[in-house]
Amino acid sequence: MNETDEETGRVALARQLAKAMARLRERRPLVQNITNFVSMDIVANALLAAGATPAMVHAREEVEDFGRIADALVVNIGTLSAEWVESMRLAAKGAQERRMPWVLDPVGAGATPFRTKSVADLCAHGPTVIRGNASEILAVATALGLQAVAARGRGVDSGNTTDEAAGAAGELARKLGATVVATGEIDVVTDGTRTLRFANGSILMTLVTATGCSLSALTGAYLAVATDPFEAACVAVAHVGVAGELAGEDASLPGMFRVAFIDRLASVGEAEILTRLRLA
Amino acid sequence: MNETDEETGRVALARQLAKAMARLRERRPLVQNITNFVSMDIVANALLAAGATPAMVHAREEVEDFGRIADALVVNIGTLSAEWVESMRLAAKGAQERRMPWVLDPVGAGATPFRTKSVADLCAHGPTVIRGNASEILAVATALGLQAVAARGRGVDSGNTTDEAAGAAGELARKLGATVVATGEIDVVTDGTRTLRFANGSILMTLVTATGCSLSALTGAYLAVATDPFEAACVAVAHVGVAGELAGEDASLPGMFRVAFIDRLASVGEAEILTRLRLA
Amino acid sequence: MNETDEETGRVALARQLAKAMARLRERRPLVQNITNFVSMDIVANALLAAGATPAMVHAREEVEDFGRIADALVVNIGTLSAEWVESMRLAAKGAQERRMPWVLDPVGAGATPFRTKSVADLCAHGPTVIRGNASEILAVATALGLQAVAARGRGVDSGNTTDEAAGAAGELARKLGATVVATGEIDVVTDGTRTLRFANGSILMTLVTATGCSLSALTGAYLAVATDPFEAACVAVAHVGVAGELAGEDASLPGMFRVAFIDRLASVGEAEILTRLRLA
Repeated sequence: MNETDEETGRVALARQLAKAMARLRERRPLVQNITNFVSMDIVANALLAAGATPAMVHAREEVEDFGRIADALVVNIGTLSAEWVESMRLAAKGAQERRMPWVLDPVGAGATPFRTKSVADLCAHGPTVIRGNASEILAVATALGLQAVAARGRGVDSGNTTDEAAGAAGELARKLGATVVATGEIDVVTDGTRTLRFANGSILMTLVTATGCSLSALTGAYLAVATDPFEAACVAVAHVGVAGELAGEDASLPGMFRVAFIDRLASVGEAEILTRLRLA
Repeated sequence: MNETDEETGRVALARQLAKAMARLRERRPLVQNITNFVSMDIVANALLAAGATPAMVHAREEVEDFGRIADALVVNIGTLSAEWVESMRLAAKGAQERRMPWVLDPVGAGATPFRTKSVADLCAHGPTVIRGNASEILAVATALGLQAVAARGRGVDSGNTTDEAAGAAGELARKLGATVVATGEIDVVTDGTRTLRFANGSILMTLVTATGCSLSALTGAYLAVATDPFEAACVAVAHVGVAGELAGEDASLPGMFRVAFIDRLASVGEAEILTRLRLA
Repeated sequence: MNETDEETGRVALARQLAKAMARLRERRPLVQNITNFVSMDIVANALLAAGATPAMVHAREEVEDFGRIADALVVNIGTLSAEWVESMRLAAKGAQERRMPWVLDPVGAGATPFRTKSVADLCAHGPTVIRGNASEILAVATALGLQAVAARGRGVDSGNTTDEAAGAAGELARKLGATVVATGEIDVVTDGTRTLRFANGSILMTLVTATGCSLSALTGAYLAVATDPFEAACVAVAHVGVAGELAGEDASLPGMFRVAFIDRLASVGEAEILTRLRLA
């Protein structure tokens, strides 16, 4: 494609994604989150700011009942334990049976055998989208028996680039029939056939917690309103990436950046997506 | 009442509530909270900002011991599980036996059978105040066998107005010998005999988490210093409502609003209550 | 020492501590935290802002595995339960066996028998540093059979000055072979032989949660890069104290103070430490 074609494609995509953003704010889907203790507060506030209705519900005794009234489910294993993994499994199973879309965020996959095994077990319930950093996506692919570049995660941080993970992301997507999102300096979205690479964001996003978790949660919200999972993942990446980029211009230090990030999740609209969306 | 009488009544109430606020800041009561993971941080900070001393203590092994040194207890079922409900029950039972005032926040009552049943069980231990949104209050009333408008909650959000819930709130108050607070655009406080309706606040309070939880927690703090539970509930509603209203003038987006809300909880005093308190 | 000698000593110390700060930011050590639900978010963000890599990992099933890839461990009993204490014990035992440094924050020690006993049990695994407020340090010393001034804690707040706790801190340090930090208006750091008293900070630090928890977490981070535990504790106290002091000049109310505190943890460097560090 020449430069004009590329720009035409970028603008068409931006318009499509902005429409999904408008639908989110109109419908305010109810998103059930089973997520970690660290980011629970900011994830709930990110969902509210972006235009969704969060519910943090994880007890074995009610995850299935609650799932029946939710529009989407997000499972994030950040601070997992055996009891929580059981709730996650029940909720994921219910979502699969009712064909409700659900997102898996494999935080720290590869860091411990318990974490890796829990992710592999959850994958059996057909996640609609898997969203992780490059090392996490590589660890999930390896855990499921795919050939992949060695994951070099360090705790919950990635030691790999998303370019290194792109091949495994595609294979993982095809194996599971899922959309896979590997985030980093470049964010890769693939459903195994189509692949898009996004370049928005701010270095400050790596100096605060919960930007990745917020992206996974917003992906869940968008699954309830988008035309397909690939579009949902793309608009979530664009929404968070452009909001983060603007927040990084509003603030130069991490405390104020977090405040600005929530503000920008609320204020970003079609105008910002059209001018800012950057493909790589 | 004519307009002058109404204004005289409003000012007299404002002066009374401002006195309770001053007492809170002087005595800094110790408030034990068994609350949810999402709002634990902001609730503790709201209590500190408002003038109380928070302690987040929930383990079965120590809730009763800790209760003996606390001035009030707040139980919030936001992210409940079977283990936590048992701690809540033990703490509530201890409070009832020692005649220590306690607040029940029935987050999401009606959303799942587990949630509704847990609330009904806790009500057996005589909460001093129940604080919820309109749908939650209706769900609690129904669970306790009262005739009530159908609750139309959606996860943790209300689908009812507080006007719809006012009748059930009064019946619930009389049945339990409690003060009941139903919050929304209008906040209704009733002990089954007296009823007051407050109209402060900001639309931004619905776009962030933990404003309702903070109100329940502050109600607990005020129970330790007010002349009676009805006054405690009224001053908590006024304190949070006026702080929220001012924060909504300080900030137009949810990230900065949360920061301003904590700041205003700390700075609101007699002057703001006198000029701002609005009855409906 | 005359005034010039004192100033020379202060500047030499400040230079030494600033070197450790630079090392932290260069190496970004991986700090495993088993900490409380209230401050988990802000502690993780404080570590990131200061220059470390946080991981909040507490499940029995993985604490030991994760410990093997971490550079330091921080155990904070703020919202303990029997299950978490077991994880804390396993993690501390593993750290002791592998000679990985670890910090114990005995939040609320003395408030309930469960809390005091849990702390005493954890002390058997040789914490490298114990960091608490004056009442908590006195309660730990008493629990371990040392003669000490009576602890007058109130929930998680101190009712004692650090001067009252200094003697017990020294004895505790000698008994355990640990460095002990008692914080308050004056922060006392002692390894039983050397003792330093720091006077930085802001009154606003007592009106928000997690400044103490953040200090304990940063002490863990510094243990991974400092020349010895005493230096690690001193640089953590200086880093947090100077950042808090500057944040208290940036903001006059607690909501904005929290934001400024994180910002200042990120921005404080050699220049601020050299001009601001204050010994008492």
